[in-house]
Amino acid sequence: MPGNRCVVYVEPGKVSVETIDYPKLELPEQNRKCDHGVILKIVATNDVEFIKMGDLVSVPFNIACGRCRMCKAGNTGVCLNVNPARPGAAYGYVDMGGWVGGQAEYVMVPYADWNLLKFPDKDQAMEKIKDLTMLSDIFPTGYHGAFTAGVTTGSTVYVAGGGPVGLACAAAAQLLGAAVVIVGDMNRERLAQARSFGCETIDLTQSGELPDMIAQIVGEPVVDAAVDCVGFEARGHGAGAGEAPATVLNDVMGITQVAGRVGIPGLYVTGDPGGIDENAKIGQLGVRIGLGWAKSLSFTTGQCPVMRYHRQLMNAILHDKVQIAKAVNATVITLEEAPQGYVDFDKGAAKKFVFNPHGMITV
Amino acid sequence: MPGNRCVVYVEPGKVSVETIDYPKLELPEQNRKCDHGVILKIVATNDVEFIKMGDLVSVPFNIACGRCRMCKAGNTGVCLNVNPARPGAAYGYVDMGGWVGGQAEYVMVPYADWNLLKFPDKDQAMEKIKDLTMLSDIFPTGYHGAFTAGVTTGSTVYVAGGGPVGLACAAAAQLLGAAVVIVGDMNRERLAQARSFGCETIDLTQSGELPDMIAQIVGEPVVDAAVDCVGFEARGHGAGAGEAPATVLNDVMGITQVAGRVGIPGLYVTGDPGGIDENAKIGQLGVRIGLGWAKSLSFTTGQCPVMRYHRQLMNAILHDKVQIAKAVNATVITLEEAPQGYVDFDKGAAKKFVFNPHGMITV
Amino acid sequence: MPGNRCVVYVEPGKVSVETIDYPKLELPEQNRKCDHGVILKIVATNDVEFIKMGDLVSVPFNIACGRCRMCKAGNTGVCLNVNPARPGAAYGYVDMGGWVGGQAEYVMVPYADWNLLKFPDKDQAMEKIKDLTMLSDIFPTGYHGAFTAGVTTGSTVYVAGGGPVGLACAAAAQLLGAAVVIVGDMNRERLAQARSFGCETIDLTQSGELPDMIAQIVGEPVVDAAVDCVGFEARGHGAGAGEAPATVLNDVMGITQVAGRVGIPGLYVTGDPGGIDENAKIGQLGVRIGLGWAKSLSFTTGQCPVMRYHRQLMNAILHDKVQIAKAVNATVITLEEAPQGYVDFDKGAAKKFVFNPHGMITV
Amino acid sequence: MPGNRCVVYVEPGKVSVETIDYPKLELPEQNRKCDHGVILKIVATNDVEFIKMGDLVSVPFNIACGRCRMCKAGNTGVCLNVNPARPGAAYGYVDMGGWVGGQAEYVMVPYADWNLLKFPDKDQAMEKIKDLTMLSDIFPTGYHGAFTAGVTTGSTVYVAGGGPVGLACAAAAQLLGAAVVIVGDMNRERLAQARSFGCETIDLTQSGELPDMIAQIVGEPVVDAAVDCVGFEARGHGAGAGEAPATVLNDVMGITQVAGRVGIPGLYVTGDPGGIDENAKIGQLGVRIGLGWAKSLSFTTGQCPVMRYHRQLMNAILHDKVQIAKAVNATVITLEEAPQGYVDFDKGAAKKFVFNPHGMITV
Repeated sequence: MPGNRCVVYVEPGKVSVETIDYPKLELPEQNRKCDHGVILKIVATNDVEFIKMGDLVSVPFNIACGRCRMCKAGNTGVCLNVNPARPGAAYGYVDMGGWVGGQAEYVMVPYADWNLLKFPDKDQAMEKIKDLTMLSDIFPTGYHGAFTAGVTTGSTVYVAGGGPVGLACAAAAQLLGAAVVIVGDMNRERLAQARSFGCETIDLTQSGELPDMIAQIVGEPVVDAAVDCVGFEARGHGAGAGEAPATVLNDVMGITQVAGRVGIPGLYVTGDPGGIDENAKIGQLGVRIGLGWAKSLSFTTGQCPVMRYHRQLMNAILHDKVQIAKAVNATVITLEEAPQGYVDFDKGAAKKFVFNPHGMITV
Repeated sequence: MPGNRCVVYVEPGKVSVETIDYPKLELPEQNRKCDHGVILKIVATNDVEFIKMGDLVSVPFNIACGRCRMCKAGNTGVCLNVNPARPGAAYGYVDMGGWVGGQAEYVMVPYADWNLLKFPDKDQAMEKIKDLTMLSDIFPTGYHGAFTAGVTTGSTVYVAGGGPVGLACAAAAQLLGAAVVIVGDMNRERLAQARSFGCETIDLTQSGELPDMIAQIVGEPVVDAAVDCVGFEARGHGAGAGEAPATVLNDVMGITQVAGRVGIPGLYVTGDPGGIDENAKIGQLGVRIGLGWAKSLSFTTGQCPVMRYHRQLMNAILHDKVQIAKAVNATVITLEEAPQGYVDFDKGAAKKFVFNPHGMITV
Repeated sequence: MPGNRCVVYVEPGKVSVETIDYPKLELPEQNRKCDHGVILKIVATNDVEFIKMGDLVSVPFNIACGRCRMCKAGNTGVCLNVNPARPGAAYGYVDMGGWVGGQAEYVMVPYADWNLLKFPDKDQAMEKIKDLTMLSDIFPTGYHGAFTAGVTTGSTVYVAGGGPVGLACAAAAQLLGAAVVIVGDMNRERLAQARSFGCETIDLTQSGELPDMIAQIVGEPVVDAAVDCVGFEARGHGAGAGEAPATVLNDVMGITQVAGRVGIPGLYVTGDPGGIDENAKIGQLGVRIGLGWAKSLSFTTGQCPVMRYHRQLMNAILHDKVQIAKAVNATVITLEEAPQGYVDFDKGAAKKFVFNPHGMITV
Repeated sequence: MPGNRCVVYVEPGKVSVETIDYPKLELPEQNRKCDHGVILKIVATNDVEFIKMGDLVSVPFNIACGRCRMCKAGNTGVCLNVNPARPGAAYGYVDMGGWVGGQAEYVMVPYADWNLLKFPDKDQAMEKIKDLTMLSDIFPTGYHGAFTAGVTTGSTVYVAGGGPVGLACAAAAQLLGAAVVIVGDMNRERLAQARSFGCETIDLTQSGELPDMIAQIVGEPVVDAAVDCVGFEARGHGAGAGEAPATVLNDVMGITQVAGRVGIPGLYVTGDPGGIDENAKIGQLGVRIGLGWAKSLSFTTGQCPVMRYHRQLMNAILHDKVQIAKAVNATVITLEEAPQGYVDFDKGAAKKFVFNPHGMITV
């Protein structure tokens, strides 16, 4: 299978694997030279990659220039120089600057010295490659959610959503020293996965009020910190509930302790053509801001700036302080299996699929 | 006029001055003894008061116990022990624990050692009493808005609202070192007041888009930090615009720099019987959360914990680093003039009324 | 054995157990009433105690008023109102305000509402009483050292000193997510204790340079964060080395990464009558400040403000996130065994002695 | 005068102006190519410079790569990649990597995209060029001292030393909102300069104890925050006092409020061949660490990472929030006058000399 095989989006719910050009040190869409870039051969995606002479590196999903005021302040998720349309870019997204995607055999990474995290020892890294591959996106993203929610030693924490980001967030909360981590979801398989590494769980398909369910676990109807790992694709509670885009955020406000912080790594969008009403279509949702205000809550939103966290999380992985691949049930597949993987994921499989384009992962 | 004269709420838009009982060291509504309290004679309200042997003190509008975990963490706006209904209490509010109000001749302050800020020198303090009286509420509240929005040396700042809190916030932003402070309002008198101490202003009754108006002042359509000093009583822009409770918050998100912070001292409520629709009646508003998320914004809401700031702001006043009374156009009136003061304020007077119940303020 | 049995200091290296008066709600030495206080029956010292009707509480070793500006800012280790001689007080110390000591059957705790931490469930607490007793001093102190050194997820950490505070600091560093925790000491028993819960160790009696020893463990001659848990009673390295009061601090600067932070919970004193020279007698030591400056290091010194940490650490204990008693080898003895315990401790026993004055601890 | 004229160090107390080579995009001393660099024509030194097509920029005195973990964390003063000898580099210093110096007509700046700060408008910038030139070193350095000492709204502050950094620190403390800024020095001219922009002063040649002098100004013998802007070249107090390298640091600890922070931008060195004793020669000084510990003080040392502050300080200058050139008495001279400038400065002139190599500054 010659050429650069790559996962390509076809239509909602469907991807295929196609052969695209090998990457070059340029970005035609922006008519831009990238002499500062590097071409990487992808070991695993979620993007753990080689750089010259066999160095093994991690690539953040955010693309950042390392020269603008946002990058200098550590806000690499909203770099000002990589996307003419608006701050921030990522590989393989529509409306994100035209950077060709990470789910391929080869990828061009610009500003390579800035963006890449080199693993200190290649052999050691290959032994933990399933964990390390999580450094490109979901582990830092989950950690960002927990960290910005103020999770620290002894915290009680509620994580809304048991998908890969939610599970990564729960593992991160444990790593941050939380006393109790509760994961809420409507998918029993995901809840079982959360329990497998020591989380408490709440099955949101059951009747009852969330504060009461929280109280049964921690003795009071509130937690110290809460994280919305679901975002706008939330559904209402209870069997048969339909789409209710702000329901998770509103729930989370209801069970956060006064003066608490809410982390919101779950995606909210500025435009959702399939939104339930005119407001939802422009990303304007019915938020119980009055409730949040009465409780003096704080909120942190947005894409995780991966570079802010990936080095320290790498160290935690390399020294066995966290089993992130196990927590999110990382499952290695070939690029060719990607279309089926997407289908399974959409059905709610409690798995995080990791691509293995060159067959280098043997675990 | 014997007894304890007090401003009393009658109905929307109307207050009167009545004689109530002298305060005692107890709180009948909660059937609670307050041996830790003190009875103060009010010099000015916005509550600058005497404590034993002629000490002059400031009283935060928040009532706090100084013993719960929230107080110990500095979150005196959501004290757990002063209001059986929910965290947080204040003087003279419905649904706030029954503490009899601060706009009177005498008031009982519980947990006096914790709550009161003593001025170091009485004579010096009386010379600046109009400024110091602002320490009870609007100055810390405005400062809290600016501080939690991340205003610091060299910031560009947008303050939504030119009422007393907005003007206090603008003055606080200057004190924090802002390079440019812009106040937006629809009331020309308030905008003129803002310009009187060096702010830039935007007249929201004029046609045009807010980002463009910002760009005309600072050269780009965004500011580093923004503060919503209006809250749910916002109205839409342009002549004739009606109530639009989340409009200020949405505007503010639109003009805040990516990765910026938004301070929200403006009040949002959990219930508004006169709300424009069913959602507004329960404090659920149409917030452009998708926009905020795409920009990686953070938000801080809630009542200001006055104690966190009042000592340092007192020092700034006493050493002439800020002229807060002048900035908010503090105007001294008698208690008997209170009903007319409320009427004028509701009409949009660019004044902060200060009561002088014992005639001790001679300036 | 009637009356209030108490451990009493006799002379250097010697304590006895004597019967003293039952405590009262007053402090004769300061001619001070303490109506805000409480008399506690001590379950374990390191002071876990009862308050009215069988509540079980923890008492910080710092005494604090909860009313001064330092207490309001969380600096309870330097309270301005409890010691006429200077800020800060503790139980049973010379020159600390005359508060009668915690190693007794009964103790009077002033400002009880402020100082005490109540355990949520008495039975649950009694099951973990050996761990919870560490909340009064060494666990928060060790945590403070690690926290102020900036220990976080993935850090490499060096803890100088394997005594009870050092071991508690090492356990705290693990709780904070450190990737590698290295304990250095000259006592083999203490190093073995450190290894028992997963620390790396450095035997300072061995020849060789500390940076080289660090490099053998973490691959570079520096760590991200370092904590001095020894203080002025340090001795030089190598067999036969004598007292060298700043040697630990200087060593620690040498192996801290540039721009790193050094926590210094180890005690340095303003006066040491037995100091090695005139400078040491007034607490002036030969510090390699030039080295620290060239590396842009930061330093945090002083007594731990226990209240800042004890609630969250209690939660970590109650939810089995840390085994602090095991880490420090907590060993329960009677009050009558205290003199022998002090002798053993001075000889370097790798144990933290916990007193059990009423025989209530059965583990 | 053809070629690249440059100030060159000759011997202690003596510099000359010589013609050196034009800079190239390489660093021979490290055998290093610098394709990422830029050659700048110096408008003013303290380094305000042109970059392509007439852009006007500021160059931090620290040289940093923008790719290492220290740069990514904002610690540009200890960059790991620009100096083979140890972290951190600067222009024109011995033992700093061989980067040819900033006091010249032309200079090569590596990693130009990372290091340079572009002024938004050239004409506006030229009008304030004397102020903007301070952005390269002393203004950020003084600000760093004040900021790391925790200076904020309402603080009382003591600045040890009235040289250019001390004066810049005092101006920065005002900008940060300090209520009272006190400058201490033994040079009357510098004290007069400090008073010229609103500082209080203490003449250290006068008899009396520093705490008493502080108390006369602020009413108590301590300040909230203190900054050591002198470093190891300190002299003892009183007429005739000799070199006493830790005297300023020890003084500063004595007058800092408990739990306060001390900023130490004043230079301490690892080796001082002319030190007063063997310890001083290796940068080991007699520090009253016992005093600092008893007061629970914190300390921040090291070279200022200019990039962390220069943008916001630029904005403060451009919007007239600070008159830094006036505060430090900036005085423009030609490169040829440099040798005399150095002589005058060594004699204690209360002036900050700014070089004007191309005669472009006309003010």
